Amino acid sequence: MARFYSFDGIDGAGKSTQLQLFCDFLRQRGEEVIVCRDPGSTELGEKIRAIVLHADDSVSIGPRSEMLLYMAARAQLVDEVIRPALATGKTVVSDRFLLANVVYQGYGGGLDVSQLWQVGQVATDGLAPDLTFLLDMPEELAAARLGDKLDRMESRGAEFRQRLRAGFLAEAEKNDKIVVVAADRAIEEIQGEIRRAVDD
Amino acid sequence: MARFYSFDGIDGAGKSTQLQLFCDFLRQRGEEVIVCRDPGSTELGEKIRAIVLHADDSVSIGPRSEMLLYMAARAQLVDEVIRPALATGKTVVSDRFLLANVVYQGYGGGLDVSQLWQVGQVATDGLAPDLTFLLDMPEELAAARLGDKLDRMESRGAEFRQRLRAGFLAEAEKNDKIVVVAADRAIEEIQGEIRRAVDD
Repeated sequence: MARFYSFDGIDGAGKSTQLQLFCDFLRQRGEEVIVCRDPGSTELGEKIRAIVLHADDSVSIGPRSEMLLYMAARAQLVDEVIRPALATGKTVVSDRFLLANVVYQGYGGGLDVSQLWQVGQVATDGLAPDLTFLLDMPEELAAARLGDKLDRMESRGAEFRQRLRAGFLAEAEKNDKIVVVAADRAIEEIQGEIRRAVDD
Repeated sequence: MARFYSFDGIDGAGKSTQLQLFCDFLRQRGEEVIVCRDPGSTELGEKIRAIVLHADDSVSIGPRSEMLLYMAARAQLVDEVIRPALATGKTVVSDRFLLANVVYQGYGGGLDVSQLWQVGQVATDGLAPDLTFLLDMPEELAAARLGDKLDRMESRGAEFRQRLRAGFLAEAEKNDKIVVVAADRAIEEIQGEIRRAVDD
């Protein structure tokens, strides 16, 4: 009964807006909803988030190290937030999850994609979202919407973000629990598609 | 030519003393020696070390999360310190390495030992010590030598430390690059055995 959803995609694609509207929808249906973000939503996760996303450049973080920090944050999120919520019948909606790690560090950062899924399996203790909504749009459009609010990761340039988009789409092709949602449309239209996917 | 050594074992077994004497020996032979500790020896690693070993109890850290933090610290140590040193012909001596993670989180913490080696393979990018000196002694003796200087990990009790010791020995049995050194003897005697092992 208790379901676990995640939202993913390149920054600027409208993840947060759609996630909020989706939670409203679930609550209106009477579900008790726990919202979280990965990395984050635990004290340890927020500490890690601060290190990986906002460290000044004096702290050197290599690609495998960065990936493992995300994995550590996710392990804590699963144990402390997601599994307990699901166990008590709540619906969990996460802003990003393992898929983002695979795409950013694999397709973006050049690490081996299948190794990332393997380490992710250990980190999540085998827990995967029932559905992931992948908000997809051309990277130029997403970047324009963000303006200069790009973080350490997203500020790596258009070519990097293009690889991320392609990576998300490649993974979606291999996994029927990832629903690709064209996000360069009106907010209500996108949300409608998401809600219909849940009912299917 | 460039060699990579690590020292491991339960706390209180005399690792630090033996490691220092061993480095003196290598330097006297004309080797340029880089000493590091795992976790640690990079800015990121020391941040992680502070989180895992000295976090107050308000920060909850689950077993998989803890393990992945150690892995992240180690990945950075390999990239930033160990590989560059080996590449320029230096000898590297590390106070602990992947083996400790496998033993503490696997035998001690109950995680799957073979999964730990797999994640470790990714974290270290396949780099393993040429030789590991495992300083072994009965846990009561090690605990008595430490007095109340036990950290978050080691303060978990005699039964836990006993499992650690057994884990170290079990891994040594499977891996001929791990040299078990009986550490309940005179300092010079132990050091003599370590030096002879290097020459063999």
